[in-house]
Amino acid sequence: MTARIDFNCDMGESFGAYKMGQDEEIIKYITSANVACGFHAGDPNWMRRTVKLAEENGVALGAHASFPDLSGFGRRNMAVAPDEAKNDIIYQMGALTAFTSAKKLQHVKPHGAMYNMAVRDEALARAICEAILEVDPGIILVALTGTQWVELARDMGLRVAREAFADRAVNADGTLVPRSKPGSVIEEVDEVARRSIKMVTEGKVTAITGEEISLAADTLCLHSDTPNSIHLASYIRSALEAEGVQIVPVGQIV
Amino acid sequence: MTARIDFNCDMGESFGAYKMGQDEEIIKYITSANVACGFHAGDPNWMRRTVKLAEENGVALGAHASFPDLSGFGRRNMAVAPDEAKNDIIYQMGALTAFTSAKKLQHVKPHGAMYNMAVRDEALARAICEAILEVDPGIILVALTGTQWVELARDMGLRVAREAFADRAVNADGTLVPRSKPGSVIEEVDEVARRSIKMVTEGKVTAITGEEISLAADTLCLHSDTPNSIHLASYIRSALEAEGVQIVPVGQIV
Amino acid sequence: MTARIDFNCDMGESFGAYKMGQDEEIIKYITSANVACGFHAGDPNWMRRTVKLAEENGVALGAHASFPDLSGFGRRNMAVAPDEAKNDIIYQMGALTAFTSAKKLQHVKPHGAMYNMAVRDEALARAICEAILEVDPGIILVALTGTQWVELARDMGLRVAREAFADRAVNADGTLVPRSKPGSVIEEVDEVARRSIKMVTEGKVTAITGEEISLAADTLCLHSDTPNSIHLASYIRSALEAEGVQIVPVGQIV
Amino acid sequence: MTARIDFNCDMGESFGAYKMGQDEEIIKYITSANVACGFHAGDPNWMRRTVKLAEENGVALGAHASFPDLSGFGRRNMAVAPDEAKNDIIYQMGALTAFTSAKKLQHVKPHGAMYNMAVRDEALARAICEAILEVDPGIILVALTGTQWVELARDMGLRVAREAFADRAVNADGTLVPRSKPGSVIEEVDEVARRSIKMVTEGKVTAITGEEISLAADTLCLHSDTPNSIHLASYIRSALEAEGVQIVPVGQIV
Repeated sequence: MTARIDFNCDMGESFGAYKMGQDEEIIKYITSANVACGFHAGDPNWMRRTVKLAEENGVALGAHASFPDLSGFGRRNMAVAPDEAKNDIIYQMGALTAFTSAKKLQHVKPHGAMYNMAVRDEALARAICEAILEVDPGIILVALTGTQWVELARDMGLRVAREAFADRAVNADGTLVPRSKPGSVIEEVDEVARRSIKMVTEGKVTAITGEEISLAADTLCLHSDTPNSIHLASYIRSALEAEGVQIVPVGQIV
Repeated sequence: MTARIDFNCDMGESFGAYKMGQDEEIIKYITSANVACGFHAGDPNWMRRTVKLAEENGVALGAHASFPDLSGFGRRNMAVAPDEAKNDIIYQMGALTAFTSAKKLQHVKPHGAMYNMAVRDEALARAICEAILEVDPGIILVALTGTQWVELARDMGLRVAREAFADRAVNADGTLVPRSKPGSVIEEVDEVARRSIKMVTEGKVTAITGEEISLAADTLCLHSDTPNSIHLASYIRSALEAEGVQIVPVGQIV
Repeated sequence: MTARIDFNCDMGESFGAYKMGQDEEIIKYITSANVACGFHAGDPNWMRRTVKLAEENGVALGAHASFPDLSGFGRRNMAVAPDEAKNDIIYQMGALTAFTSAKKLQHVKPHGAMYNMAVRDEALARAICEAILEVDPGIILVALTGTQWVELARDMGLRVAREAFADRAVNADGTLVPRSKPGSVIEEVDEVARRSIKMVTEGKVTAITGEEISLAADTLCLHSDTPNSIHLASYIRSALEAEGVQIVPVGQIV
Repeated sequence: MTARIDFNCDMGESFGAYKMGQDEEIIKYITSANVACGFHAGDPNWMRRTVKLAEENGVALGAHASFPDLSGFGRRNMAVAPDEAKNDIIYQMGALTAFTSAKKLQHVKPHGAMYNMAVRDEALARAICEAILEVDPGIILVALTGTQWVELARDMGLRVAREAFADRAVNADGTLVPRSKPGSVIEEVDEVARRSIKMVTEGKVTAITGEEISLAADTLCLHSDTPNSIHLASYIRSALEAEGVQIVPVGQIV
């Protein structure tokens, strides 16, 4: 069987007169777009443009749902009650859906603080899953690989895409090394490519401790916000394709 | 043929800790709910509650789309470009749709300043129609009866519900007498009921000048924000039913 | 020496078309107003009205500073960095100051989640103090009596008003019994009055465990959001005055 | 007497994670900073940074007050009632003042749509003036030269700085040629410099019709948002200084 992987990237993070990201460039290398829906970034005008850009490039669409925190870019933990988070997510999913030609989303990926909190907070993780099930049980949840959140979502009957970060060091238990620690971000392009290939073809990664551990990935998270990120995306994509890996939207994988 | 009319009312205008309207009471008398979508009022939590309330009462659902003006309750004219207004409306329609059981709206009624501006501003009126056509051409536009906006929408292929205000005086040309003028609001319940019956059964109304003029109505706008509004709704409903008029969602009329 | 106490109350929590609180009534019984500054509630128009109402009634003015969380009414914990919280507070203090006749505030009282977090989070507590020192070292901080926050503020050179809640049960260590526990809120007016008198004249209160503990209070927090709250305010005020206690703005006490 | 002129520039227009403008560069060439106050751009954190940057560079501070329209960057006309606009401005003035070391502003310059509307809308123009008078009658209003707004402000007792745009063509009556017309923006640096010198030393400018007209200027508006804008600022400053013109904060001029 041919190995397959999805490349996802956060997009549509501009807001009003504010431009962010290099969407027109990164779109050429990815297969799934996580579109900001106005709660941490994005607005109706940028959502339209982003959806159009993705559709023209054959890139699948998902909602990048966030806590309501525009001034903090959704990066600040908030004690939003699970039922409120659920409603916030449904709202954002619906808003994005209306801009798509198919009136349908491929996936939902919680943004920033909501994503990080869901890894540890079961009630929030459950609320996110309930939001998806309520809107459309066919929509895929993108969640951090190796977490209870993934298990919970599967138990609840969701399609789940396990996400990995090829440029982030992992601990021996598979969790991400926090950005505050040295060595947490892998800068060297060749090394990121090698890790990507190993993740996708062997389901393994070398932890920061030196051990080789299992790490299953259905989708890799790419970025578009650094000068180097477009080059990195292009490089990893070529490296994986050279190994015979197919880069396809996650809806064709899970 | 039996005369039929829809009763619509603005709902879900609470926001966070702020409660507004008597939704639980007025819901018993209306057939279509215009639900605030977070731009002038409402939020994801109130949208869920309002949708549930309407569905439990067999009341059809529509988006009460607004300019982005929470602090002004959507009542202040804004020079939003037509393309931006279109995107704002699509966003709000989608957000509300996601909360409905049917994942479908019956109608869209622009709120406040957007509604009033659309009566005179053809580019805005057209943008509103385009938003609906893009999301779902089966969705009905609620627009002020007797206006070019109604004609435009029909020319564009939309289903249109012509809205009348039973408690508002009209000029000889069918336009509303501005609230700033004496006699603009009809307070006497019996008189409002008589006008409603005449509008619905004869398609006529007596203008403030004394003339009897034609005025076609598919839906009457009720309110829930005054102490007397629930009584008025109940009274008009009974009066119309006594005349053999059926009160049904506007989706069954146009 | 005559015992003195301040009565403070949250005010100006209306927003745009949304009315909240019974400001015109409660203002007659209090001596210090905590005015919402637009982050959890309030807006420039309501701030003007509230400042005018307070000044006409001889009530001292303070900023009720909050995290930026309008949809959550500032009641949700947020991981706002201390430096960001400091700037948020300075912004709100300045905005309110500009509406006052004296261009000067008496006090600052953090609202909701920010208040509760500051009791336990020293970095946040310090940031709140720094905000006040930076704007005007003469401004008083209102903080929960018996906490390290009070000590920290004093160490930093601030004037501090220790706040107590006459209608809330306290544990043996002086902390508030959480609202989720039975008996946390004292409903009986006579009992609240008795506790108020004891706090103010003896500096003591009976804990929920039955012990009598020390509890120093410079200001008592009253409410205006329940049907009974105006009656309670009036009753407590009369009861304290009957004991010879003077009710004065906290600026005359600390 | 030595000719003097102020250079003003909009600053602090970043918001949260969004960076806008080249504040660190343009600050070297200007004498007055118009700081965004959170209504169209800016936030408490950027306000602190911007105030610090200006103070370190000896640049005078003013509030760039706007309608509440973050998603439209304050560029959309809004039918805000004059009393509401007045309160919005007071709020923004106060918020900015609290970040300044002197707890005092030099000036207020309405932003975008509010500025443009004030040129024609006397009630709004008056409300802007009242806001300044209420906060501090010593604060200078920056208003478009040659307008009734300038006259009104003077009649109300305000200090007024007449603003001109060296890179914008003017009609024979002194009004700006709209950006939509060809030739409205003067791109050639030498030409902008020549026009600046003539405005400042002779109080004259050549209209688009070829006539030489009178045009008094106390302050010139510079930009920092185009690649060329820093060069232009530096060039004009040098050109004026070479003519013996002093570039000083407008508080030393009017």
